[in-house]
Amino acid sequence: MAKGEEVSNKQVILRDYVTGFPKETDMILTTKTIKLKVPEGSKSVLVKNLYLSCDPYMRSCMTKIEGRNYVPPFTPGSPIIGMGVAKVLDSDHLNFKEGDLVSGFIGWEEYSLITMPEGLSKIKNTDVQLSYYTGLLGIAGLTAYVGFYEFCSPKKGENVFISAASGAVGQLVGQFAKIMGCYVVGSAGSNEKVDLLKNKFGFDAAFNYKEEPDLDAALKRYFPEGIDIYFENVGGKMLDAVLENIRDRGRISVCGMISQYNLEKPEGVHNLFYLITKQVRMEGFLIGGYLHLFPKYFDFIIPLIKEGKIIYIEDTVEGLENAPGALIGLYTGRNVGKQVVVVAHE
Amino acid sequence: MAKGEEVSNKQVILRDYVTGFPKETDMILTTKTIKLKVPEGSKSVLVKNLYLSCDPYMRSCMTKIEGRNYVPPFTPGSPIIGMGVAKVLDSDHLNFKEGDLVSGFIGWEEYSLITMPEGLSKIKNTDVQLSYYTGLLGIAGLTAYVGFYEFCSPKKGENVFISAASGAVGQLVGQFAKIMGCYVVGSAGSNEKVDLLKNKFGFDAAFNYKEEPDLDAALKRYFPEGIDIYFENVGGKMLDAVLENIRDRGRISVCGMISQYNLEKPEGVHNLFYLITKQVRMEGFLIGGYLHLFPKYFDFIIPLIKEGKIIYIEDTVEGLENAPGALIGLYTGRNVGKQVVVVAHE
Repeated sequence: MAKGEEVSNKQVILRDYVTGFPKETDMILTTKTIKLKVPEGSKSVLVKNLYLSCDPYMRSCMTKIEGRNYVPPFTPGSPIIGMGVAKVLDSDHLNFKEGDLVSGFIGWEEYSLITMPEGLSKIKNTDVQLSYYTGLLGIAGLTAYVGFYEFCSPKKGENVFISAASGAVGQLVGQFAKIMGCYVVGSAGSNEKVDLLKNKFGFDAAFNYKEEPDLDAALKRYFPEGIDIYFENVGGKMLDAVLENIRDRGRISVCGMISQYNLEKPEGVHNLFYLITKQVRMEGFLIGGYLHLFPKYFDFIIPLIKEGKIIYIEDTVEGLENAPGALIGLYTGRNVGKQVVVVAHE
Repeated sequence: MAKGEEVSNKQVILRDYVTGFPKETDMILTTKTIKLKVPEGSKSVLVKNLYLSCDPYMRSCMTKIEGRNYVPPFTPGSPIIGMGVAKVLDSDHLNFKEGDLVSGFIGWEEYSLITMPEGLSKIKNTDVQLSYYTGLLGIAGLTAYVGFYEFCSPKKGENVFISAASGAVGQLVGQFAKIMGCYVVGSAGSNEKVDLLKNKFGFDAAFNYKEEPDLDAALKRYFPEGIDIYFENVGGKMLDAVLENIRDRGRISVCGMISQYNLEKPEGVHNLFYLITKQVRMEGFLIGGYLHLFPKYFDFIIPLIKEGKIIYIEDTVEGLENAPGALIGLYTGRNVGKQVVVVAHE
């Protein structure tokens, strides 16, 4: 594959904005061509995409509702945009050169011409699994780190509950909380995931919320003394149940509400009065404002990975053509661990 | 009235725990007798009650639901307990002597024997209106002070919205926000109150929520650029509308939810997802943990009162027999300003 050659470029395109539950057919697989060379003077880079990250927030980009998007919505007729890992094939930008490995926002396609490469990060530690840069060493990892340490104000011995606990973020929050000496319980949507939480990630306990007709009773069983910290990934009924069981001066870090993303009208949460009687702080955050903490996070996490003190489970599918199914699978909980799509091995 | 004399003691008794909207008939006026002398060695004080405070939180004391009470529930068959101002008639406690004026929790009766007087505060500044110790110089004032300065993190020029804005707490929060140089809008339930907010308390604008079929549209009209700070006194639909209009990094100080207190099941709040996309902090508090700030608050507020820079409106009814109606009136918004009951003039 010579530089400048014109090659075919498979893409996953958003057909149109989506209402309700997204379907695979809302995305179209198409093939275009691309020249493997950046226009001179364009300050662009041309990358070969290796790993794509599937993240719950991407549902919000399939709809355009003022104030409800984590990040700008996708453009119908254009490729889905997401986080990923890529290799630079050609560069007209001083910061990047051929052969560099990068992570950042890329298109769901085989090759992307990136006209504003300032948003890309050069991967310096290449002695860890490269796909980790879509999750453990990417936005999910930083989200777990910031959401837990900055927003939960955790203390040793506290009772921590995490929903969607085997997901890209949850599995890390649980391990961080264990390292800190907390009592940690997670909820997930299958017995396989519950097993992972208990036997792989070292949670003190875990339960399958689909087998619990009464979430309040389930939480009372696992937290007879109540919850100090709730790391919120799901919203809706689980949040109401947590509010019934939160302790005085509890903290709720609101990272996501995946149970609500496909509803026309989000479910009502009825127990907010407990915010007063239990003096609870509930705070939402977007990771975009904390990207400057990546170096600090890397200093923290890379030694832990190398010492085997942090485990990270990825659910990997091969081939761009399987990316739409992988993304949709997040909303039924099909994935076990961080959902990654391999577009090409390096 | 000689010390030691046995006199009649009118009382307002809670008949039984209440479901739904409270009625005057849930309280009974009765007459007992009381000896105007404390038992020797009892470390008690005997007080003559002067002013009673009617506060929204008192509804929660009429029901016994684990975790939903601001303070312990009332005891059926015993007098209602609330904040008030009283005069010491007899004391067996070192800290108090006959003639002292005190504020704190007292019974809804003419005379109270207080067996643990450590909770009472001696009134030192007697050159301000004495009834102010039920509100402006009592729990309501401290609540406004702590709720605004500690929980709203206000900055000059920010956009502040206050619900139940002419109430005991709201009227002060609005004036504090104006002193700080904020743009301040309040909502209330009558045109008379709206007029007070604009013309007496100096709010920039105010509206009657009962005349706004679409609260979201109303907030957009008054806050075309959105709300930075919401001082929450009502809950329910208003909270949902605020979440639609809150700005990035907005703060919601959750002081009360009066619209919800009489509902069997609280209304659902549907817009919590904005906590994430707008990175909002929402925090509830109980003033009981901040009573040590009273001296700091007094240093702040008393000069402002004396300079005429703070205005405080009370809605006063005369006679213990009118106390049940005054309390119930809070939940229909009948009161204009802080609701006070005069049991006796000094």
